[in-house]
Amino acid sequence: MITSYTLARVLPAKDRNVYASVKTFAEVKDVILTYGEYDLILKIESNSLEALDDFVFNKLRVIDGVISTTTLLEANPKTITQ
Amino acid sequence: MITSYTLARVLPAKDRNVYASVKTFAEVKDVILTYGEYDLILKIESNSLEALDDFVFNKLRVIDGVISTTTLLEANPKTITQ
Amino acid sequence: MITSYTLARVLPAKDRNVYASVKTFAEVKDVILTYGEYDLILKIESNSLEALDDFVFNKLRVIDGVISTTTLLEANPKTITQ
Amino acid sequence: MITSYTLARVLPAKDRNVYASVKTFAEVKDVILTYGEYDLILKIESNSLEALDDFVFNKLRVIDGVISTTTLLEANPKTITQ
Amino acid sequence: MITSYTLARVLPAKDRNVYASVKTFAEVKDVILTYGEYDLILKIESNSLEALDDFVFNKLRVIDGVISTTTLLEANPKTITQ
Amino acid sequence: MITSYTLARVLPAKDRNVYASVKTFAEVKDVILTYGEYDLILKIESNSLEALDDFVFNKLRVIDGVISTTTLLEANPKTITQ
Amino acid sequence: MITSYTLARVLPAKDRNVYASVKTFAEVKDVILTYGEYDLILKIESNSLEALDDFVFNKLRVIDGVISTTTLLEANPKTITQ
Amino acid sequence: MITSYTLARVLPAKDRNVYASVKTFAEVKDVILTYGEYDLILKIESNSLEALDDFVFNKLRVIDGVISTTTLLEANPKTITQ
Repeated sequence: MITSYTLARVLPAKDRNVYASVKTFAEVKDVILTYGEYDLILKIESNSLEALDDFVFNKLRVIDGVISTTTLLEANPKTITQ
Repeated sequence: MITSYTLARVLPAKDRNVYASVKTFAEVKDVILTYGEYDLILKIESNSLEALDDFVFNKLRVIDGVISTTTLLEANPKTITQ
Repeated sequence: MITSYTLARVLPAKDRNVYASVKTFAEVKDVILTYGEYDLILKIESNSLEALDDFVFNKLRVIDGVISTTTLLEANPKTITQ
Repeated sequence: MITSYTLARVLPAKDRNVYASVKTFAEVKDVILTYGEYDLILKIESNSLEALDDFVFNKLRVIDGVISTTTLLEANPKTITQ
Repeated sequence: MITSYTLARVLPAKDRNVYASVKTFAEVKDVILTYGEYDLILKIESNSLEALDDFVFNKLRVIDGVISTTTLLEANPKTITQ
Repeated sequence: MITSYTLARVLPAKDRNVYASVKTFAEVKDVILTYGEYDLILKIESNSLEALDDFVFNKLRVIDGVISTTTLLEANPKTITQ
Repeated sequence: MITSYTLARVLPAKDRNVYASVKTFAEVKDVILTYGEYDLILKIESNSLEALDDFVFNKLRVIDGVISTTTLLEANPKTITQ
Repeated sequence: MITSYTLARVLPAKDRNVYASVKTFAEVKDVILTYGEYDLILKIESNSLEALDDFVFNKLRVIDGVISTTTLLEANPKTITQ
């Protein structure tokens, strides 16, 4: 399971539509509308990197009103031995 | 009372229209047009977080020419005990 | 209840320490370490704006290794009537 | 009279000190501590560009804990005939 | 005399047109087309802040193809006594 | 030979088209589609600065769907004597 | 095999040291020193997400002089059906 | 001859020192101190890319107080046939 967060910028008048569209996807485990540097924050769970690619490019980025997306993958903290 | 500042980017040829529209709202206590990293800075006072949501999403972001907004809420300096 | 996300930048060699410190706070409902534009993403729940101020300034930002934080509050999607 | 806003980034553990220092200057007409992309927002009034230079470089930027500042000057909306 | 630099982002297919338009203004003392973070860098000299406002909002930002502009004013280094 | 990398932002629904167009150019030695802060990363090799100008402005930036590009040139590490 | 690019910011006087350190890692398939928005661009190949985590957090970010890193993973263009 | 501009961020209390150091270099044709998103803007002329590398890495970035630099090269507008 791969967890990631997507920070999205949305066209100012499309906030509600994008929010509603995004909520319908099974991959989206959490979504908030916010008024800071980004407009939407999504928590996404995918079974593989291919499934994540599919979600980001074929489902999320094609929604009308999405301007830009930045997706940040979770690193496994147990791997870190600093 | 919740105080916040919104930093906005505006379409280059719509500066004047957005400025004029924004000045008509009671929530807007101060507004300057600027030529730095942002185009407009607004000081906003709202009675509640819901009222701020309403202002940002239903009044500000739907103005023709607004490209993006970043809203920063005031933290209460008395709470800070660093 | 106020939900927000904090995007944090951490000193490169302090990732693990900051991650471990952050996980001990009751306000932190989710935290991921990531290797994108930010180093940590935190989901925070607070009982009030004052409690959020207290968390951000007195608990989070004083952790050794935190360079910068950006906190984005959740807007209530039901308020939006665009 | 020149009005400007300064958006400042502050060292995470110095928020309170910088806030207190900044409030003592006559040029500072408003200041909020915030938890968004910037840490402090200041409204500044200066009698001339030289006085603004003096404030920004000799008073504000030398305060211990200030990391970076971006100052945005007010443009006169009456000049704009777009 | 007020010296400033404007960093501009231009629509990808309008680089040449914007460059040619900008070169016709007397206020523009230097202009380069670049392929870094910005697309155009302009050096501007204005007789007053009002003349700078006029240039930025009425001449520069209305050119077809200009997406965003950031104007940075020169501070007088003699004022600085750090 | 001049090596450079271009970081590009692409219209959300044009990712695939821009990727396919970019792959057809001889100057492009490597290209990846990514879901971070940028959408495409290109490695470019040019015979001269003029050839790089030609590639960036006449071939890359005119592709339908390209929003912005930032091109970073390779510095020669042997020159550096820090 | 997972391909990614890391964009790094380096302390101004440590460019050469970080460049030399980075070149010694087997995961680093390409590295350029650049003078744009970032200081180093690295192409990384890892056998798994865990190996990438290990490289980024245990090898790269602990090098003296590294200020910040942004790692962008390659999406598989064949997955995209836009 | 290669023309470029460097946008630099400087430690808040070192503005004057960095400004004075930078002015002593023959490659620097113009320099302004500014209070916007960057602290210094430099116009640089170099005889070759190697000379530019030498200036940026061996002269500019090693000055005490320089935090980060972004150098943007001039593209030749005559090459552009868009």
